[in-house]
Amino acid sequence: MEDKGISRAVISRLPRYYRYLGQLVDEGVEKISSNDLSILMKVTASQIRQDLNNFGGFGQQGYGYNVKFLYEEIANILGLDKKHNLVLIGAGNLGHALANYVNFERRGFIIKGIFDKNENVHGKKIRDVEVRPMSEMKEFVLKNDIDIAVLTIPKESAVTVAAELVNCGIKAIWNFAHVDLNVPDNIVVENVHLSESLMKLSYDLNNTEKGN
Amino acid sequence: MEDKGISRAVISRLPRYYRYLGQLVDEGVEKISSNDLSILMKVTASQIRQDLNNFGGFGQQGYGYNVKFLYEEIANILGLDKKHNLVLIGAGNLGHALANYVNFERRGFIIKGIFDKNENVHGKKIRDVEVRPMSEMKEFVLKNDIDIAVLTIPKESAVTVAAELVNCGIKAIWNFAHVDLNVPDNIVVENVHLSESLMKLSYDLNNTEKGN
Repeated sequence: MEDKGISRAVISRLPRYYRYLGQLVDEGVEKISSNDLSILMKVTASQIRQDLNNFGGFGQQGYGYNVKFLYEEIANILGLDKKHNLVLIGAGNLGHALANYVNFERRGFIIKGIFDKNENVHGKKIRDVEVRPMSEMKEFVLKNDIDIAVLTIPKESAVTVAAELVNCGIKAIWNFAHVDLNVPDNIVVENVHLSESLMKLSYDLNNTEKGN
Repeated sequence: MEDKGISRAVISRLPRYYRYLGQLVDEGVEKISSNDLSILMKVTASQIRQDLNNFGGFGQQGYGYNVKFLYEEIANILGLDKKHNLVLIGAGNLGHALANYVNFERRGFIIKGIFDKNENVHGKKIRDVEVRPMSEMKEFVLKNDIDIAVLTIPKESAVTVAAELVNCGIKAIWNFAHVDLNVPDNIVVENVHLSESLMKLSYDLNNTEKGN
């Protein structure tokens, strides 16, 4: 496995490379030097070279990077060349926002089912996917080859629902509930804790103001 | 300034300490040892001690941490003891989700105004705050002592709107648009790039599967 031992810092920068390279592909740019990419992305050219060297390096001295090739290689590294079936648990505003985001689908993440405990939304559709009662969740996950669950439910129910999903063989949870899920180590959990993000902003704002 | 030179890694862990300590306060727990906190938070006791030592350390040997005191100190460090006025730009599903999240208000972040370019939502209210046309944004921000703007608009308009907000004296932007904003260095920007979070999940899922 060529990408063993790559630091989390590098991994966490890859989606940003992917985004910029995607824009370059869309604009018809065929090659780019690490210097030009550096100016565009506002990071040092040496960081770019170091980061991309982790994956064997795709640049050629005096030529630069082949944009489309690099874009596709990063997609492969990120696993975006595979399709994953998702269920979305929680059809509130945040659930709607995520379900309506077409880019996820374009990158291979397909929302197969949506579940909510609120009877009033059962049977309604979000982009052609019906909202079902929570009681149907387990059977649906077992029958539809679901890899990923997206949790946009309150923290009070998130831990229990996560445990049920793990029992049904889910492999990864994209967790928007403001709580740490208690799942086995082999389950991938990616947390999006929005209030923690706002607190970081608050810290920076506070310290900028002090510095003025 | 006692908190100069604290690493971003420590800062980014503070909101999680704040969350756990808040739960302990709610449960009426008065003191906790670094070992017990370590078990609860699933990090090492030595990391807890190191992290909290950055702020002078609030623990006493043989006594542990005074929960309420530590909770309030971290709140102060994060700037949560201050009130900040926000505007929300974009009243779509994500904007609704954020505007409806009462915890932000409890932590001092007050949504004063909401703006959207869609005429159909003008005059509607989200938790008593009226949605206004974009043409009123500048004057509103100038007149209402607004510190923070939350951007939940498409990337196509985010860069322009961010520049307008900066011209009106905004100090921080919580950016959900999937684009890097081009703002001066003294403006605090906290990005929440949801598709990048999903790509990290994808990477981990891909590498877990390979490892199996």
